[in-house]
Amino acid sequence: MIGKKINLKDKFSKFSKQWSPRVIAEMNNYQFKVAKIKGEFVWHNHKDTDETFIVIDGAMSIKFRDGEVKLSKGEMLVVPKGVEHKPCAKEECKILVVEPRGVVNTGETGGEFTMTEDIWI
Amino acid sequence: MIGKKINLKDKFSKFSKQWSPRVIAEMNNYQFKVAKIKGEFVWHNHKDTDETFIVIDGAMSIKFRDGEVKLSKGEMLVVPKGVEHKPCAKEECKILVVEPRGVVNTGETGGEFTMTEDIWI
Repeated sequence: MIGKKINLKDKFSKFSKQWSPRVIAEMNNYQFKVAKIKGEFVWHNHKDTDETFIVIDGAMSIKFRDGEVKLSKGEMLVVPKGVEHKPCAKEECKILVVEPRGVVNTGETGGEFTMTEDIWI
Repeated sequence: MIGKKINLKDKFSKFSKQWSPRVIAEMNNYQFKVAKIKGEFVWHNHKDTDETFIVIDGAMSIKFRDGEVKLSKGEMLVVPKGVEHKPCAKEECKILVVEPRGVVNTGETGGEFTMTEDIWI
């Protein structure tokens, strides 16, 4: 059974909305999502799971209550479960997020950025 | 709690052995591994899990019993569990593999390429 390859650049060309992750693949019960981010997200945490950020293009920072990690293209960070974080980007940044299916982007914080369902592209 | 960022280019600079994945991060019970590949791997499958390949630099192909998927930098493929596959690369290719902790690189095929333990870098 031949799988279907995924081209990240192609996927990023298919949407423009910021802070609105799009699912591009599933591996077991995990999802790969692409997102375009700019500005400041909300403080939140995921109490049941770690979350992985991989920067595909541009630069971002992930703020923690006790500091900040700056990430550029080709860099990644695993945010441990339960740890409050706030993704930010001065200019639009393209990222790949890996996390279990069903994770809500804003955790339990809610608000305008909350994605209530998966959007596949 | 500030996480530790991972620079892929830096990780690739830390080893040269081909077909010898190095663990760079864990997310829950999943691992991110970098590998340098060249030539032909062995036919194998992972009966309990999907496996994700992301090409970081260069080009590779993943052969299946009924065809082949060619992947270049910025492209990825999820190989479904139980599906026989054979990674290949004409020139050295740098990849990121995502799969559960404990997956053996050669499945149950064995042979000289088999990694019997995790090597972290």
